[in-house]
Amino acid sequence: MADQKQEVRLFGIVGSPETTSVEIALKLKGVSYEYVHESPTNKSDLLRKYNPVYNKVPVLVHHENPVCDYLVILEYVDETWKTCPILPSDPHQRALARFWSKFINDKVIPAIFKAALNPKEEEREKGKEEVVEALQIMENELRGKFFNGDSIGIVDIAAVYVAFWLPIIQEAGGLHVFTAEKFPKLEKWTREFLNLPYVKPTLPPREKPLAYYKNLIQSLASSK
Amino acid sequence: MADQKQEVRLFGIVGSPETTSVEIALKLKGVSYEYVHESPTNKSDLLRKYNPVYNKVPVLVHHENPVCDYLVILEYVDETWKTCPILPSDPHQRALARFWSKFINDKVIPAIFKAALNPKEEEREKGKEEVVEALQIMENELRGKFFNGDSIGIVDIAAVYVAFWLPIIQEAGGLHVFTAEKFPKLEKWTREFLNLPYVKPTLPPREKPLAYYKNLIQSLASSK
Repeated sequence: MADQKQEVRLFGIVGSPETTSVEIALKLKGVSYEYVHESPTNKSDLLRKYNPVYNKVPVLVHHENPVCDYLVILEYVDETWKTCPILPSDPHQRALARFWSKFINDKVIPAIFKAALNPKEEEREKGKEEVVEALQIMENELRGKFFNGDSIGIVDIAAVYVAFWLPIIQEAGGLHVFTAEKFPKLEKWTREFLNLPYVKPTLPPREKPLAYYKNLIQSLASSK
Repeated sequence: MADQKQEVRLFGIVGSPETTSVEIALKLKGVSYEYVHESPTNKSDLLRKYNPVYNKVPVLVHHENPVCDYLVILEYVDETWKTCPILPSDPHQRALARFWSKFINDKVIPAIFKAALNPKEEEREKGKEEVVEALQIMENELRGKFFNGDSIGIVDIAAVYVAFWLPIIQEAGGLHVFTAEKFPKLEKWTREFLNLPYVKPTLPPREKPLAYYKNLIQSLASSK
């Protein structure tokens, strides 16, 4: 196990949803890894070496081979450690899992950012509509306990931002769109997902991102 | 063959780089398919049914199962028809192929759009710098005849926009960044790639996109 840990290093930032996604996948599969803390303001030379194109976390380094981009990392993890697969085996089901995890990355998360943090009020209003529309699509898509049925998969893992960060942003005063009344299945999924034994201890303490978003949203309001 | 054709339908638009990418992969693998022409201005009810989230081409429908998003489709095609693989078999090499095809989609193509078509001249100038930077990264990454070595793969196929559409945009008057002097390996790759027997006949006639971009760029100049 000690050897395996040395072989697998995860460069991450505490509070980064993408880093958290990768950690959930590694823990689900029982992969030991060394967590290398990066500073958001002062990236290390090693991070620059391993991710020269984006200079961004998370980066997974396995046997000195770096893998960048959290959705690419999640697929790599699934192909390298086969237990508890996070992608289905059927090609069409795999395509759907890829499509929905990309949807969360390309549509849901940017809409939340726009709705909560765009400097223009008009844009924030548009963003809110986009978030509601995107959450409704997710609500309709959630047919089982998890997005892939009875066990969690890449879509749930990619959606940790919706489960954990979106309620924090709401509490920070930025948004009031995700409620149990409007999205009952999604709210139930959030509770189930966040309580999983390899998810709960992986989440960062709530206080830090809460303070961070409160600050951001207040400075947005005061710059009016 | 007739049966296989009925089973595989590709909803596309002539002149769409993403549609062309999927066609190249299908032809490379010898998959017969029915091409269903969509109109860019008047999408069909079938397209809305098969891609309700984005209502966009390309959509591959196989045995009535729709697959959307061209990078997701390319992976589906590779997993379904195994001959002439477009992704390597080694997990780390697969991760790299995914990373670079996403880089082309997320960085290179938006930079070209910004450089050629952003209404603000200042933004177009920034875009040009971004294109040069992105092409330099691609130039450095191109170590063999193709991005994956001796045979073509998903990165080459995703980069059809750079090989075919970028020179058209340049000729239309929008940009002068991609030259053989600055990017000799990339320019050589372009010629090799576009001349492949399953690529050349798949490309749309040059005149239509050329006229389209000329028009767009002229209206941009006249709206100053």
